[in-house]
Amino acid sequence: MKPTHIEHLGIAVKSLDEAIPVWEKMLGTKCYSIEEVTEQKVKTAFFKIGQTKIELLEATAEDSPIAKFIENKGTGVHHVALAVEDLQGSLNEAAELGIQLIDKTPRKGAEGLNIGFLHPKSTGGVLTELCSE
Amino acid sequence: MKPTHIEHLGIAVKSLDEAIPVWEKMLGTKCYSIEEVTEQKVKTAFFKIGQTKIELLEATAEDSPIAKFIENKGTGVHHVALAVEDLQGSLNEAAELGIQLIDKTPRKGAEGLNIGFLHPKSTGGVLTELCSE
Repeated sequence: MKPTHIEHLGIAVKSLDEAIPVWEKMLGTKCYSIEEVTEQKVKTAFFKIGQTKIELLEATAEDSPIAKFIENKGTGVHHVALAVEDLQGSLNEAAELGIQLIDKTPRKGAEGLNIGFLHPKSTGGVLTELCSE
Repeated sequence: MKPTHIEHLGIAVKSLDEAIPVWEKMLGTKCYSIEEVTEQKVKTAFFKIGQTKIELLEATAEDSPIAKFIENKGTGVHHVALAVEDLQGSLNEAAELGIQLIDKTPRKGAEGLNIGFLHPKSTGGVLTELCSE
Protein backbone atom coordinates (compact mmCIF):
# COMPACT_ATOMS: atom_id res chain seq x y z
CA MET A 1 0.00 0.00 0.00
CA LYS A 2 1.64 3.18 -1.19
CA PRO A 3 -0.84 6.04 -1.63
CA THR A 4 0.38 8.89 -3.85
CA HIS A 5 -1.34 11.83 -2.14
CA ILE A 6 -4.30 12.92 -0.05
CA GLU A 7 -7.14 12.88 -2.57
CA HIS A 8 -9.58 14.67 -0.28
CA LEU A 9 -10.57 15.52 3.26
CA GLY A 10 -14.20 14.89 4.15
CA ILE A 11 -15.48 17.51 6.58
CA ALA A 12 -18.80 17.11 8.43
CA VAL A 13 -20.80 20.35 8.48
CA LYS A 14 -24.27 21.18 9.72
CA SER A 15 -25.23 23.27 6.71
CA LEU A 16 -23.58 23.57 3.30
CA ASP A 17 -25.25 26.95 2.86
CA GLU A 18 -23.38 28.23 5.93
CA ALA A 19 -20.12 26.32 5.43
CA ILE A 20 -19.51 27.00 1.72
CA PRO A 21 -18.94 30.78 2.12
CA VAL A 22 -16.58 30.13 5.07
CA TRP A 23 -14.44 27.71 3.07
CA GLU A 24 -14.52 29.96 0.03
CA LYS A 25 -12.98 32.66 2.21
CA MET A 26 -10.38 30.35 3.77
CA LEU A 27 -9.29 28.73 0.52
CA GLY A 28 -9.64 31.80 -1.69
CA THR A 29 -11.40 29.67 -4.27
CA LYS A 30 -15.01 28.90 -5.20
CA CYS A 31 -16.86 25.66 -4.57
CA TYR A 32 -16.77 23.94 -7.97
CA SER A 33 -19.32 21.16 -7.50
CA ILE A 34 -22.29 20.21 -5.35
CA GLU A 35 -23.44 16.61 -5.48
CA GLU A 36 -25.86 14.42 -3.54
CA VAL A 37 -24.75 10.87 -2.71
CA THR A 38 -28.11 9.28 -1.90
CA GLU A 39 -26.62 5.95 -0.81
CA GLN A 40 -24.62 7.76 1.90
CA LYS A 41 -27.43 10.22 2.74
CA VAL A 42 -25.19 13.21 2.25
CA LYS A 43 -24.95 16.32 0.11
CA THR A 44 -21.36 17.26 -0.74
CA ALA A 45 -19.61 20.44 -1.85
CA PHE A 46 -16.10 20.38 -3.35
CA PHE A 47 -13.13 22.74 -3.35
CA LYS A 48 -9.62 22.18 -4.66
CA ILE A 49 -6.38 23.14 -2.88
CA GLY A 50 -3.15 21.84 -4.41
CA GLN A 51 -3.37 18.06 -4.91
CA THR A 52 -6.25 17.76 -2.46
CA LYS A 53 -9.98 18.36 -2.49
CA ILE A 54 -12.00 19.58 0.46
CA GLU A 55 -15.33 17.73 0.52
CA LEU A 56 -17.91 19.33 2.81
CA LEU A 57 -20.56 16.82 3.91
CA GLU A 58 -24.08 17.71 5.05
CA ALA A 59 -26.45 14.98 6.26
CA THR A 60 -29.69 14.62 4.26
CA ALA A 61 -31.38 12.35 6.85
CA GLU A 62 -31.30 11.88 10.62
CA ASP A 63 -29.74 8.43 10.25
CA SER A 64 -27.01 9.65 7.89
CA PRO A 65 -23.48 8.69 9.02
CA ILE A 66 -22.68 12.41 9.01
CA ALA A 67 -25.56 13.25 11.38
CA LYS A 68 -24.32 10.52 13.75
CA PHE A 69 -20.74 11.77 13.53
CA ILE A 70 -21.76 15.35 14.39
CA GLU A 71 -23.89 14.08 17.29
CA ASN A 72 -20.90 12.20 18.73
CA LYS A 73 -17.95 14.43 17.91
CA GLY A 74 -19.25 17.74 16.59
CA THR A 75 -18.48 19.21 13.19
CA GLY A 76 -14.97 18.71 11.82
CA VAL A 77 -12.83 16.35 9.77
CA HIS A 78 -14.84 13.17 9.18
CA HIS A 79 -12.46 11.19 6.98
CA VAL A 80 -9.14 11.30 5.14
CA ALA A 81 -9.02 9.86 1.62
CA LEU A 82 -5.76 8.51 0.23
CA ALA A 83 -5.33 8.13 -3.54
CA VAL A 84 -4.06 4.72 -4.63
CA GLU A 85 -3.48 3.33 -8.10
CA ASP A 86 -4.81 -0.19 -7.55
CA LEU A 87 -7.78 0.02 -5.17
CA GLN A 88 -8.66 -3.68 -4.90
CA GLY A 89 -4.97 -4.57 -4.53
CA SER A 90 -4.57 -1.92 -1.82
CA LEU A 91 -7.62 -3.17 0.10
CA ASN A 92 -6.24 -6.71 -0.07
CA GLU A 93 -2.84 -5.49 1.09
CA ALA A 94 -4.39 -3.53 3.98
CA ALA A 95 -6.21 -6.69 5.11
CA GLU A 96 -2.96 -8.66 4.91
CA LEU A 97 -1.29 -6.00 7.07
CA GLY A 98 -3.95 -6.60 9.73
CA ILE A 99 -6.03 -3.49 9.03
CA GLN A 100 -9.77 -4.09 9.46
CA LEU A 101 -11.77 -3.14 6.36
CA ILE A 102 -15.24 -1.61 6.13
CA ASP A 103 -15.32 -2.36 2.38
CA LYS A 104 -13.67 -5.53 1.13
CA THR A 105 -14.38 -4.55 -2.46
CA PRO A 106 -14.57 -1.10 -4.10
CA ARG A 107 -17.83 0.80 -4.37
CA LYS A 108 -18.81 4.07 -6.03
CA GLY A 109 -18.31 7.38 -4.19
CA ALA A 110 -18.77 11.03 -5.07
CA GLU A 111 -17.12 12.41 -8.22
CA GLY A 112 -17.21 8.98 -9.87
CA LEU A 113 -14.34 7.68 -7.74
CA ASN A 114 -14.02 4.07 -6.68
CA ILE A 115 -13.69 3.99 -2.92
CA GLY A 116 -13.15 1.63 0.00
CA PHE A 117 -13.05 2.48 3.71
CA LEU A 118 -10.67 1.18 6.36
CA HIS A 119 -12.08 0.82 9.86
CA PRO A 120 -11.09 3.63 12.27
CA LYS A 121 -10.45 1.00 14.97
CA SER A 122 -7.43 -0.09 12.95
CA THR A 123 -6.25 3.38 12.02
CA GLY A 124 -6.02 5.16 15.37
CA GLY A 125 -9.49 6.69 15.18
CA VAL A 126 -9.11 8.25 11.73
CA LEU A 127 -11.75 7.03 9.30
CA THR A 128 -9.60 6.43 6.21
CA GLU A 129 -10.80 6.00 2.66
CA LEU A 130 -8.74 4.58 -0.17
CA CYS A 131 -9.80 5.77 -3.59
CA SER A 132 -8.88 5.57 -7.25
CA GLU A 133 -10.25 7.08 -10.46
CA MET B 1 -6.02 34.46 1.49
CA LYS B 2 -5.05 31.89 -1.09
CA PRO B 3 -3.28 28.87 0.40
CA THR B 4 -1.31 26.77 -2.09
CA HIS B 5 -1.78 23.31 -0.58
CA ILE B 6 -2.42 21.37 2.60
CA GLU B 7 0.93 21.53 4.36
CA HIS B 8 0.04 18.95 6.98
CA LEU B 9 -2.70 17.21 8.90
CA GLY B 10 -2.25 17.09 12.67
CA ILE B 11 -3.59 13.84 14.10
CA ALA B 12 -4.10 13.34 17.84
CA VAL B 13 -2.92 9.90 19.00
CA LYS B 14 -2.63 8.32 22.42
CA SER B 15 0.79 6.82 21.81
CA LEU B 16 3.35 7.52 19.08
CA ASP B 17 4.85 4.08 19.73
CA GLU B 18 1.54 2.48 18.77
CA ALA B 19 0.50 4.91 16.04
CA ILE B 20 3.76 5.14 14.08
CA PRO B 21 3.73 1.50 12.87
CA VAL B 22 0.06 1.84 11.85
CA TRP B 23 0.72 4.93 9.74
CA GLU B 24 3.88 3.40 8.28
CA LYS B 25 1.69 0.55 7.03
CA MET B 26 -1.04 2.83 5.68
CA LEU B 27 1.28 5.25 3.93
CA GLY B 28 3.89 2.72 2.83
CA THR B 29 6.60 5.07 4.05
CA LYS B 30 8.69 5.49 7.17
CA CYS B 31 8.33 8.20 9.79
CA TYR B 32 11.15 10.62 8.92
CA SER B 33 11.26 12.81 12.02
CA ILE B 34 10.27 12.83 15.69
CA GLU B 35 10.30 16.17 17.48
CA GLU B 36 9.09 17.49 20.82
CA VAL B 37 7.40 20.90 20.87
CA THR B 38 7.66 21.76 24.55
CA GLU B 39 5.61 24.98 24.28
CA GLN B 40 2.65 22.92 22.97
CA LYS B 41 3.30 19.96 25.32
CA VAL B 42 3.37 17.50 22.44
CA LYS B 43 5.68 15.00 20.83
CA THR B 44 5.27 14.81 17.05
CA ALA B 45 6.09 12.24 14.36
CA PHE B 46 6.14 13.14 10.66
CA PHE B 47 5.38 11.31 7.43
CA LYS B 48 5.17 12.64 3.89
CA ILE B 49 2.47 11.82 1.34
CA GLY B 50 2.46 13.88 -1.87
CA GLN B 51 2.45 17.60 -1.01
CA THR B 52 1.24 16.93 2.52
CA LYS B 53 2.76 15.80 5.80
CA ILE B 54 1.00 13.69 8.38
CA GLU B 55 1.92 14.97 11.86
CA LEU B 56 1.04 12.56 14.65
CA LEU B 57 0.65 14.33 17.99
CA GLU B 58 1.06 12.73 21.41
CA ALA B 59 0.45 14.73 24.59
CA THR B 60 3.42 15.03 26.95
CA ALA B 61 1.34 16.41 29.85
CA GLU B 62 -2.20 16.06 31.16
CA ASP B 63 -2.96 19.71 30.35
CA SER B 64 -1.65 19.44 26.79
CA PRO B 65 -4.15 20.65 24.15
CA ILE B 66 -3.88 17.17 22.62
CA ALA B 67 -4.84 15.43 25.86
CA LYS B 68 -7.88 17.72 26.12
CA PHE B 69 -8.83 17.10 22.50
CA ILE B 70 -8.72 13.31 22.95
CA GLU B 71 -10.75 13.60 26.16
CA ASN B 72 -13.49 15.54 24.32
CA LYS B 73 -13.50 14.00 20.86
CA GLY B 74 -11.32 10.90 20.90
CA THR B 75 -8.27 10.33 18.72
CA GLY B 76 -8.39 11.62 15.16
CA VAL B 77 -7.70 14.67 13.01
CA HIS B 78 -6.86 17.57 15.34
CA HIS B 79 -6.03 20.31 12.85
CA VAL B 80 -5.58 21.08 9.17
CA ALA B 81 -2.62 23.26 8.17
CA LEU B 82 -2.77 25.35 5.01
CA ALA B 83 0.46 26.59 3.40
CA VAL B 84 0.47 30.31 2.61
CA GLU B 85 3.23 32.48 1.21
CA ASP B 86 2.71 35.57 3.38
CA LEU B 87 1.68 34.43 6.86
CA GLN B 88 1.21 37.81 8.55
CA GLY B 89 -0.64 39.12 5.50
CA SER B 90 -2.89 36.04 5.48
CA LEU B 91 -3.68 36.37 9.20
CA ASN B 92 -4.57 40.04 8.64
CA GLU B 93 -6.72 39.11 5.67
CA ALA B 94 -8.50 36.37 7.64
CA ALA B 95 -9.32 38.88 10.37
CA GLU B 96 -10.64 41.34 7.76
CA LEU B 97 -12.85 38.53 6.39
CA GLY B 98 -14.38 38.15 9.85
CA ILE B 99 -12.50 34.99 10.84
CA GLN B 100 -11.58 34.91 14.54
CA LEU B 101 -7.84 34.38 15.12
CA ILE B 102 -6.10 32.44 17.88
CA ASP B 103 -2.76 33.96 16.85
CA LYS B 104 -2.71 37.54 15.60
CA THR B 105 0.98 37.27 14.81
CA PRO B 106 3.07 34.26 13.68
CA ARG B 107 4.83 32.00 16.16
CA LYS B 108 7.19 29.06 15.77
CA GLY B 109 5.81 25.54 15.22
CA ALA B 110 7.33 22.14 14.54
CA GLU B 111 9.79 21.73 11.65
CA GLY B 112 10.84 25.38 11.93
CA LEU B 113 7.60 26.60 10.32
CA ASN B 114 5.99 29.91 11.17
CA ILE B 115 2.41 29.21 12.17
CA GLY B 116 -0.80 30.94 13.18
CA PHE B 117 -4.11 29.33 14.16
CA LEU B 118 -7.62 30.37 13.17
CA HIS B 119 -10.34 29.76 15.74
CA PRO B 120 -12.49 26.67 15.05
CA LYS B 121 -15.62 28.70 15.93
CA SER B 122 -15.05 30.66 12.72
CA THR B 123 -14.14 27.66 10.58
CA GLY B 124 -17.02 25.26 11.12
CA GLY B 125 -15.32 23.32 13.89
CA VAL B 126 -12.08 22.61 12.03
CA LEU B 127 -9.04 23.92 13.89
CA THR B 128 -7.11 25.49 11.00
CA GLU B 129 -3.47 26.50 11.00
CA LEU B 130 -1.88 28.78 8.44
CA CYS B 131 1.84 28.22 7.99
CA SER B 132 4.81 29.35 5.97
CA GLU B 133 8.47 28.39 5.77
